[in-house]
Amino acid sequence: MQDSEARVRSHDWLAEIRWNADGLVPAIAQDATTGDILMMAWMNAESLRLTAEEGQAVYWSRSRGKLWRKGETSGHQQIIAEIRLDCDEDVILLKVEQKGGIACHTGRRSCFYRRLENGQWTSVEPVLRDPKAIYGNKLGGSSNE
Amino acid sequence: MQDSEARVRSHDWLAEIRWNADGLVPAIAQDATTGDILMMAWMNAESLRLTAEEGQAVYWSRSRGKLWRKGETSGHQQIIAEIRLDCDEDVILLKVEQKGGIACHTGRRSCFYRRLENGQWTSVEPVLRDPKAIYGNKLGGSSNE
Repeated sequence: MQDSEARVRSHDWLAEIRWNADGLVPAIAQDATTGDILMMAWMNAESLRLTAEEGQAVYWSRSRGKLWRKGETSGHQQIIAEIRLDCDEDVILLKVEQKGGIACHTGRRSCFYRRLENGQWTSVEPVLRDPKAIYGNKLGGSSNE
Repeated sequence: MQDSEARVRSHDWLAEIRWNADGLVPAIAQDATTGDILMMAWMNAESLRLTAEEGQAVYWSRSRGKLWRKGETSGHQQIIAEIRLDCDEDVILLKVEQKGGIACHTGRRSCFYRRLENGQWTSVEPVLRDPKAIYGNKLGGSSNE
């Protein structure tokens, strides 16, 4: 009885979210300790439910059209510390522990490694690990999505 | 001559961005000092160009269909410290100084004031100022958009 009540309640929190026309919302991943913004990806209701249930970030890959368990290839999982919702109920914020210290498919800590300087996007964060060493030859050239 | 070269270069950095079908990208605002994530809104090319030129955040309001200079009613401008771009060239990160210490139209510091706790979204950040005192009766009930 308690289990089924918990399940109903679990559906309630998903129903409060204003999914876009494609059934998605943006999800920002932030390092829970340092506050660094690591990446932004997309979630559908199933991926957000799984994120909460499994305690690690599960996104929806728009390019591959399927669930994407962050770290499934790289080992760079994101362990959930907090899940937050914004005032418009249409953006999710994940506070996470970033396994391996690398969120970006380029081998950098954060996907936001380019800064606008004098009218040019300039890379300001180092590659910590060669993507080929992370992904082998499978996904080295592709983006997070 | 230098001016026109700078202008051309300025168009280059905007052209590198992968705008969505509506000509928009998500823009995350982060407190440059504390690292707190304040809000996420949307930008078109013009709003991003103006953000860079004016040194304060200018978004695109999807609901109102027009440029939205953050703080134009509330006085809670966001002064730009850095503009960053992610690896997929489709998300902007602004590091800002948040005037008044309040980013959210609810009078809270951050729009991400609800945390998922036991299957419920729970408000975990205080209202710092009554929205009616911020907006008068004009926009008190509306969202950031």
